[in-house]
Amino acid sequence: MGKNKKIRLVCLGGIGEIGKNCNVIEYGDSAVLIDCGLSFPDAHMLGVDLVIPDFTYLLRNRRKLKAVILTHGHEDHIGALPYLLQDMVPPAIYGTTLTLGLVRSKLSEFALPDVEIPFHEIEAGDRIDIDNKLQVDTYHVAHSIPDGLALAIHTPGGTLLHSGDFKLDRSPIDHLPTDLKGIEAICKERDILALMIDTTNIERPGWTGSEAEVGPALAEHFATHKGRIFVTTFASNIHRIQQVVDLAEEFGRRVFLAGRTMLKNVEMARSQGYLRVPENILVHPDELNRFPPQKLAVLATGSQGEPMAALSQISRDEHRFVSIREDDLVIFSASPIPGNETYIYTVINDLFRLGAEVIYGLEAGVHVSGHGSREEIKMLFEAVKPRYVVPVHSQFRHQMLFRKLVEDWEHKPQDVIIMGVGDVLAMDKNEYELRERVKAGEVFIDGLSVGSVSSRILNERTMLAEDGLVLYTLLLDETGDHILDGPIVKSRGFLPERQNPELYKEMREVLTESLFHNRLRGHAHQSQLRNNLANALQRFIFRKLGLNPTIIGTVLHLHPEKLAEKAQGGGGA
Amino acid sequence: MGKNKKIRLVCLGGIGEIGKNCNVIEYGDSAVLIDCGLSFPDAHMLGVDLVIPDFTYLLRNRRKLKAVILTHGHEDHIGALPYLLQDMVPPAIYGTTLTLGLVRSKLSEFALPDVEIPFHEIEAGDRIDIDNKLQVDTYHVAHSIPDGLALAIHTPGGTLLHSGDFKLDRSPIDHLPTDLKGIEAICKERDILALMIDTTNIERPGWTGSEAEVGPALAEHFATHKGRIFVTTFASNIHRIQQVVDLAEEFGRRVFLAGRTMLKNVEMARSQGYLRVPENILVHPDELNRFPPQKLAVLATGSQGEPMAALSQISRDEHRFVSIREDDLVIFSASPIPGNETYIYTVINDLFRLGAEVIYGLEAGVHVSGHGSREEIKMLFEAVKPRYVVPVHSQFRHQMLFRKLVEDWEHKPQDVIIMGVGDVLAMDKNEYELRERVKAGEVFIDGLSVGSVSSRILNERTMLAEDGLVLYTLLLDETGDHILDGPIVKSRGFLPERQNPELYKEMREVLTESLFHNRLRGHAHQSQLRNNLANALQRFIFRKLGLNPTIIGTVLHLHPEKLAEKAQGGGGA
Repeated sequence: MGKNKKIRLVCLGGIGEIGKNCNVIEYGDSAVLIDCGLSFPDAHMLGVDLVIPDFTYLLRNRRKLKAVILTHGHEDHIGALPYLLQDMVPPAIYGTTLTLGLVRSKLSEFALPDVEIPFHEIEAGDRIDIDNKLQVDTYHVAHSIPDGLALAIHTPGGTLLHSGDFKLDRSPIDHLPTDLKGIEAICKERDILALMIDTTNIERPGWTGSEAEVGPALAEHFATHKGRIFVTTFASNIHRIQQVVDLAEEFGRRVFLAGRTMLKNVEMARSQGYLRVPENILVHPDELNRFPPQKLAVLATGSQGEPMAALSQISRDEHRFVSIREDDLVIFSASPIPGNETYIYTVINDLFRLGAEVIYGLEAGVHVSGHGSREEIKMLFEAVKPRYVVPVHSQFRHQMLFRKLVEDWEHKPQDVIIMGVGDVLAMDKNEYELRERVKAGEVFIDGLSVGSVSSRILNERTMLAEDGLVLYTLLLDETGDHILDGPIVKSRGFLPERQNPELYKEMREVLTESLFHNRLRGHAHQSQLRNNLANALQRFIFRKLGLNPTIIGTVLHLHPEKLAEKAQGGGGA
Repeated sequence: MGKNKKIRLVCLGGIGEIGKNCNVIEYGDSAVLIDCGLSFPDAHMLGVDLVIPDFTYLLRNRRKLKAVILTHGHEDHIGALPYLLQDMVPPAIYGTTLTLGLVRSKLSEFALPDVEIPFHEIEAGDRIDIDNKLQVDTYHVAHSIPDGLALAIHTPGGTLLHSGDFKLDRSPIDHLPTDLKGIEAICKERDILALMIDTTNIERPGWTGSEAEVGPALAEHFATHKGRIFVTTFASNIHRIQQVVDLAEEFGRRVFLAGRTMLKNVEMARSQGYLRVPENILVHPDELNRFPPQKLAVLATGSQGEPMAALSQISRDEHRFVSIREDDLVIFSASPIPGNETYIYTVINDLFRLGAEVIYGLEAGVHVSGHGSREEIKMLFEAVKPRYVVPVHSQFRHQMLFRKLVEDWEHKPQDVIIMGVGDVLAMDKNEYELRERVKAGEVFIDGLSVGSVSSRILNERTMLAEDGLVLYTLLLDETGDHILDGPIVKSRGFLPERQNPELYKEMREVLTESLFHNRLRGHAHQSQLRNNLANALQRFIFRKLGLNPTIIGTVLHLHPEKLAEKAQGGGGA
C-alpha cells in the first residue's frame, strides 16, 4: 500500500510531554492542525518567558495546511497561535465561541500581518468540511474550561478520534457532560482507525471528582467564615469562577477581581454568555473599603504561586489595592503543577504570616482536576474501540503506564503507539509505521524575540548563574611587551572587590605574571594570549576558592600609527 | 523575676523552616547547642552548594557553650558541624554511635584546627551531666535513620523536652520503638516547661505507616520480577537498606551498591553493627556481568533526582558500570521533597525510555515517612503535657495548623509559641517572652568559601541568568575626544555576534553616538561616562529586543605621558 494512502499524524508537540499541544493530521496533500499551544519554561531554561513549538514543518508544508482546529481555550492549546500567525495565516481557524474569544483577546497584544484572520466560530455537534479529503465532526467534552471539543477526523484512509482534554464529569456546572453518546454513535457508524486520548491523569485510579463537588466544599466556608474570603484559581476556569460568584451572591458578598487575566476573562466570558455575573456584584478598587469584611469575596490569580500574579503580590503585601487582615481566609482552589510547589508554599507561608487563614491541599475538597482519571480513560477507550491508540497530553511514564493498563483491559498493548515530539505516524488499517521524523522541538521566547534563545545561550546563562563572572581588560603596546593600562579586573555574581581587595590584587598579579610567561614563550597570537590569560586566572580562582566563574578577557594592542592617525582627527567619536 | 532565672531558647535554624536545625538552650551562663545542620539551596540560590546557619551568636557566646548534642545523623542535623568546628571547638560533642560515625566520616573531608575534637559517644537512656546547671536525659526515638534521640534538658528553671525527629512506629525494623514510656516517666517526675515537637507531618491526618509495611510491598516485587531490581532511597535510611539486603538474601540476589554515599554509609553502618550484610552478598563492579539479571539487586542513591547521583547517571546512560536493560525494574523507595518533583520525573521518564519499568508514588506502598503524622504528634503532645509548646522542624503554615489543632485538642492555643530563625524565647513557669532577636540566618557555601556568597551576589547572578550579559570596551585618548580602539562588544547568554552581525554593528554605533553626545555635553567624569554609555546601550537593546541583559562597560583613557614612560621599560609586563 502506497504511503500516500495512509493517514499521517505529525507530532509537533504535546505527545510524550504535557504542554504545547500541536499536531498535524494529513491525508495526501491535505492537512489540518489540531491545536497550537505553548509551554511554560522549566527552571533550567534561565530567562525564558515561554516555549512554543518549532513551526518549521508547518512553514515548509504551508500549501498543504487547510485549517487549524482548536479543541479548547487553554494556553497549552492556543497560546502559540499568535506566533504562528506572525509567520503564516492558514486558510481557516475553527474554534468554539469561548475558545476564539480567548484567542482574539491574546492577539490584541501582537503585531500581526495586515490580513484578515479567517476565524470560524463553531459549536459542538457541527461538522467542518475542510475539503474533499478531510471532514471533522465535533463533540462537546467537559473539562476545566467550558466549550471544549473532541474531534472525529474523517479521511479516505479512515477516521481518527481526538479526545481533546476531557473528563466524564456527570454533573458539570453548565449541565453539559462529555457527549459520550455522540462519540459512541460515530464509532458504531465507522471503525475508528486511531484514538488520540488524553492520559494526563492515568496515574490516578478511579474517577476524577465532579466540578459539582467543589461548590458545597466552598459553600461551607462561605457559610461560616466571618471575614473576607479569597479564592484563587486559574482565570480560565470559568465554571469555578461561576461557583464562587454564585456563592458570593447566595451569602451576600460582593466580589473583587484581582489580576489582569481574571478581569479580562471574566469580562469576556460574561459578554459571551459563559458566565452569569449579577449586576453590581463586582466591586471597584476604590469601593473596597466601603464593604465590611463579611460582605467581600476576592477572586485572584496566582494559584500556582507565579511571582507576579495578584495573590503573590498580596502575600508580599505589595498589591496596590488589597492588604491581608487577621480575619481573611484564602482558599487555593487549584492543585500545584509539578515544579510549582516551592513557589506555592512560599505564598501560603507568607499569607499565614500576614495573619490569614489558608485552605489548601487535596484534603480540603476545594478543587477537582479537569482531566479524567484511570476509569474515565478506560471508559472512553472502550467506547471507541480503536484499531490503534495514541496516548497524548502525557509524559513518557504516563504513556508506558497506559500501555501496561491496556493489557489489563484485555487489549493488545502492541496497538498502543508511543510517540514523541517530531515523530510521524503513518497508518492504515493493516499496519502502522513510526519511522519518519521531522524537525520539531522547543523554540524559546525571551523578550520580544522568537527563537533567538538557543540551548547554547541557555548553557552560557547556566554557567553565569552558577559561579558568576570575572572579566579582565589589558592594554598592551604594539609589541605586546609592555602593559600600558590594566589589568583591570571586574566581576558580577562573584566576590566583590570592595570586600576582597587582596583577592583582586592577586588576580591582577596572576594576569601580569601569565602575560610575562606568554611573552617569554612567544605566544603572539592575540586570541591564544587571551585564552592563556583566562586559563591562568581560572586555575588560580578554582584553586583558591573552588569556584568556576565565566571568564571574559579583552586585550587591546595599541598601534602607534593608529594613535597618530586618530589624534589627527580621523577617528573622532 | 530576673531574666537570668529564665530558660532561653535561641533559634539559629530549624524553627519556622525545614532544614539546618540549630538551637541553643541556655540557663544563666551555661548553654547547650542542640544539632548543627545544613539545608540544601532553593532554586533561586543560583550556584549555592549548601546553606548553613549563621554562627555569629555562637561565636560571640563561645564561653557559654558547654556542649553540642546531636539528636541523629541526618544532614539537616549534623551537616553544618564541620563548618562550626572550623571556627570553634566546643568543650564536648555528644551523639550516638551511628550519629558520630556519620559526623566523623564527614570531617575527613575538611581541614580542621589541629586539636582533638571532644566526641562523646552516648546511647539512648544515658544522662549527660553538662555542668551544675544543665543535665540532659536521652530517649530513643524511631525515625528514618537508626539511633535517634529525644532529649529532656533539665535546668534550675525547669525541664525542656525536645522530641528530635520522631515517629511512633510500633514495629520498626530494629525493634526499637520510640521510648514513649521513658518520656512519660520523666514527664510524671517533673513538670515539662516546654516541648519542642517535630511537626513536619502535621498536614497528614492519622498515623504514618510503619517501616515494617515497606518490606512486604518490596517483597512482592522481589518475588515476581524476573530481571534486575533497582531500589533507590536515602543512603542514611539504614533500615530501608537492611530490608532490601534481607530481601535480596531471601530471594537469592546479590547486591550492587551504586553511589559514593551509599557505599560509605553501608560500610560504616555495617562496621558499627547497625546493618547486617551477609558475607559475599555485595558485588564488585567487575563482577556485575557474572550474575544473571534475576540474581541481581542494585541499591542506588538519587531518590530525589539529584543530577549527579548514581540513579540519575544511570537514567542518562552515563553510569560507569550500570546500563539499563529491558527487564530492569526500578523502585523509588522515597517521596519527593517539595521542589524536587521535576528532577525526579525527568529521571523516571528517562528510565522508562531506556526500557525499565519504574515503580514510584505513594500508591506503590514502597515508602513510608520518617516523621509522625497528626495523631502521633497529638499522642506525644498529650503524653508530655507541657506548659508551653514550640512546634519545630516545620514551616510557618505547619506551625499555624498545629496551633489550630491544639485548640481542637482542648488546650490553650496561646501556649503554642510560634518562633522563627533569630528569635529568642525566654521563659519560666509564669510567663514567656519573645522579644529579643539575635543575628541569625542563612550563610551560603559556594565552592570552598563559607559565607562569601551574599544576597547581593545572588541578585547579580539572577540578573545574569535572566537575560545574559553584554560588555563593551572603549579606548579613548587623553582628552576623551577620540576613540583609539573599540567599541568592542562581547556577550554571554545573549544573542551571539556570529548569528547577529547587524545587531552588533548597531550596538557599536549606539555606543559611538552616545560617546559623541556625552562629549558635547561635557561629561568628563569617567564613571559618569561609563554609566551613560551603558544606559544608552541598555535602552537600545530593550527597545529592539525586549531584553534586559547586564551591561558592563570598560573605558580606558590613554595618557601619552604614561605611554612614553611605559615604552621606556618602566611598565614592563
